[in-house]
Amino acid sequence: MKYDFLIVGAGYAGAVAARELADAGHKVLVVDKRNHIGGNAFDTLDENGVLIHPYGPHIFHTNSRKIFEYLSRFTEWRFYEHRVLAKEKDAYYPIPINRITINKVFNLNLSEEEVEGFLDTKRVKKTEIKTSEDVVLNSVGHELCEMFFRGYTRKQWDLDLSELAAGVAARIPTRTNDDDRYFSDTFQMMPSHGYTAMFERILDSKNIEVRLSFDYLLNRKEINFDKLIFTGPIDAYYENCFGKLPYRSLRFEHEHFAVDQFQSVGTVNYPNEQDFTRITEFKHITGQVVSGTSIVKEYSQSSGDPYYPVPNPINESLYQKYLAKAELEKNVYFVGRLAQYRYYNMDQVVGSSLALVNKILDK
Amino acid sequence: MKYDFLIVGAGYAGAVAARELADAGHKVLVVDKRNHIGGNAFDTLDENGVLIHPYGPHIFHTNSRKIFEYLSRFTEWRFYEHRVLAKEKDAYYPIPINRITINKVFNLNLSEEEVEGFLDTKRVKKTEIKTSEDVVLNSVGHELCEMFFRGYTRKQWDLDLSELAAGVAARIPTRTNDDDRYFSDTFQMMPSHGYTAMFERILDSKNIEVRLSFDYLLNRKEINFDKLIFTGPIDAYYENCFGKLPYRSLRFEHEHFAVDQFQSVGTVNYPNEQDFTRITEFKHITGQVVSGTSIVKEYSQSSGDPYYPVPNPINESLYQKYLAKAELEKNVYFVGRLAQYRYYNMDQVVGSSLALVNKILDK
Ligand SMILES: Cc1cc2nc3c(=O)[nH]c(=O)nc-3n(C[C@H](O)[C@H](O)[C@H](O)COP(=O)(O)OP(=O)(O)OC[C@H]3O[C@@H](n4cnc5c(N)ncnc54)[C@H](O)[C@@H]3O)c2cc1C
Ligand SMILES: Cc1cc2nc3c(=O)[nH]c(=O)nc-3n(C[C@H](O)[C@H](O)[C@H](O)COP(=O)(O)OP(=O)(O)OC[C@H]3O[C@@H](n4cnc5c(N)ncnc54)[C@H](O)[C@@H]3O)c2cc1C
Repeated sequence: MKYDFLIVGAGYAGAVAARELADAGHKVLVVDKRNHIGGNAFDTLDENGVLIHPYGPHIFHTNSRKIFEYLSRFTEWRFYEHRVLAKEKDAYYPIPINRITINKVFNLNLSEEEVEGFLDTKRVKKTEIKTSEDVVLNSVGHELCEMFFRGYTRKQWDLDLSELAAGVAARIPTRTNDDDRYFSDTFQMMPSHGYTAMFERILDSKNIEVRLSFDYLLNRKEINFDKLIFTGPIDAYYENCFGKLPYRSLRFEHEHFAVDQFQSVGTVNYPNEQDFTRITEFKHITGQVVSGTSIVKEYSQSSGDPYYPVPNPINESLYQKYLAKAELEKNVYFVGRLAQYRYYNMDQVVGSSLALVNKILDK
Repeated sequence: MKYDFLIVGAGYAGAVAARELADAGHKVLVVDKRNHIGGNAFDTLDENGVLIHPYGPHIFHTNSRKIFEYLSRFTEWRFYEHRVLAKEKDAYYPIPINRITINKVFNLNLSEEEVEGFLDTKRVKKTEIKTSEDVVLNSVGHELCEMFFRGYTRKQWDLDLSELAAGVAARIPTRTNDDDRYFSDTFQMMPSHGYTAMFERILDSKNIEVRLSFDYLLNRKEINFDKLIFTGPIDAYYENCFGKLPYRSLRFEHEHFAVDQFQSVGTVNYPNEQDFTRITEFKHITGQVVSGTSIVKEYSQSSGDPYYPVPNPINESLYQKYLAKAELEKNVYFVGRLAQYRYYNMDQVVGSSLALVNKILDK
């Protein structure tokens, strides 16, 4: 059998493209080397019946009504606003930094109006913002930088803050009010029945076939297709011909406790203490009502499954080489976090995949 | 037993107030003269297993994140954007009026940019906007006014457009683009398991007792309480001492069909033809997957259950008399659509009730 499209990867990028092409009448085969759909957003019950995210906690949030509406075809939603605390010497501080964080760190009692002026006295003004260190120093100054950013960055990226592109720290706001939500997007909702259930519905089409535990790069010849959409790492597709694109990887330590609640919020960050970067308790996020609770500790590491593209100018220019090669392809398309080597959130990947299919279908 | 609060009415106004007071530790009795909770938002399965709204179609929409978040404590959500068509001589037109409506009515092919100029040629400019007629003529001119507004208003309110306060028509936008959503609020979502299920959770507190089929006004002496929150008609509370406040009522004709879909959108308006004002098909709104479909036809009438306050200066000044009396009360509070004689949507009633409780609790 010949497929109109072979899609490599059953995460957001692959699943959304598959569905759109299938709805437009194309015969699609989706393959994934893992034994499940959903990519890194996959969720499943652990041996204690708790719904967990094996590849780390995934919280859905978007400002795009269009993308939210699109996914709403495949799921209902539970309102959930993620909250994060940083733990340091047995005290907890709201993250991102807000009025409460600042008052607690400096043992002050500033009003909203006063915080801005206080930060002005702390700020290390930078005329040129090149690195994440510039971003942080320029917005909150030395003390808060050391307390919440430098150590965490070292753990997470194995880089000094000054070696990390500005964009990473720029994603994190500083607030002068008491808003302690981790995200401020309009739509902050979790799929009512979880991500995997949503992916099952996305992929539920008579024009879509799914083959799991199948690594395309080890079996390039096996499938007969017209066009290819590749959502794995772009460097792997080209056999690392220009060298490997660096990724940070993670090791997850999952644990279960016979208590109702392990911590008071979804995620507690450990900016300086501990080897892990953070602990997430899934029940906060999923809203599941079940006895016992499961958590995950995240350890950042340099080798293993590719999770985070490492954004810096050298890596970016290496990626551009692969991109140039990709753009010469006639019937091969690259989309998604790994294929575009972009620190994309889920909603952005959906958007990117929808845009690609629109481009393909208009042709 | 003595209650801290007696709350008359188990709709949004009453249920939300009850929950907030109960959470603050007060003992609350909620009574309703109907045999169910939820007020006019009540939903239930009909004899064919279809989820219907016995008191007419209720679509939840709000721009208030706070109110949406509040209700999210009691329900999950299904994304739903309501769409309405007007039927006239076997043709269907998007409502509110948009580019497609205008092109279809005038048999034109105007672009978005051209629509604005076209409407300018149709518009009857009004320097003073007092009535709904002024609003409509000023924004779309005679033809569209006759086609979509005057007849509908006559049926709905038994008034000429020129007798209806400006506010009513001002609620309906005119669009020059192709947006055919009935509402443009940020949050347009239906409770996943329906309104009644949500009300059950709102009222689920050890401090709340609910007594149904109990008319407070016929049994004023029977219950022992400190404070009263009344969400029924304010004039009835005062035995119509200044005269009755006018309300429009509705007669609902529910029908079931052994087909999957009766009409292509949630609601079809009949601005001029037919005696009913509109037909709503519930499955569009609730998202229920069930065989067969149920619809409701709405006939407007002057007597019966009070549904819509009739906004005009005379009625407003009559209401102000009752309000003045109410403001002299020490331990009686009035909140909700009937008690405040306001054309409130559900979210506004929630907001109004939360505000009242905050005021009460701060005392
Ligand atoms: C720890 C962590 C936490 C995150 N938290 C959030 C969050 O809270 N909110 C948010 O919006 N985003 C979050 N993200 C980002 C989110 O995971 C991604 O945006 C999204 O999952 C990317 O989708 P994708 O389809 O591009 O890639 P992926 O989900 O990685 O899917 C790619 C798929 O391709 C398969 N594949 C690769 N190579 C091959 C091959 N050769 N043959 C066959 N199959 C192959 C892989 O097995 C994989 O399943 C997080 C990411 C991580 C790592
Ligand atoms: C046909 C129709 C369609 C609507 N559609 C929408 C919509 O799509 N979206 C939207 O946001 N809003 C809609 N609304 C408005 C919505 O119904 C109201 O905003 C909301 O239900 C009002 O809540 P409430 O608690 O103020 O009043 P109600 O829901 O009317 O509740 C008041 C309760 O008090 C009880 N009561 C009255 N007197 C007594 C007494 N003496 N003793 C005991 N109990 C008493 C009544 O039985 C009633 O249950 C619609 C209204 C109607 C009529």
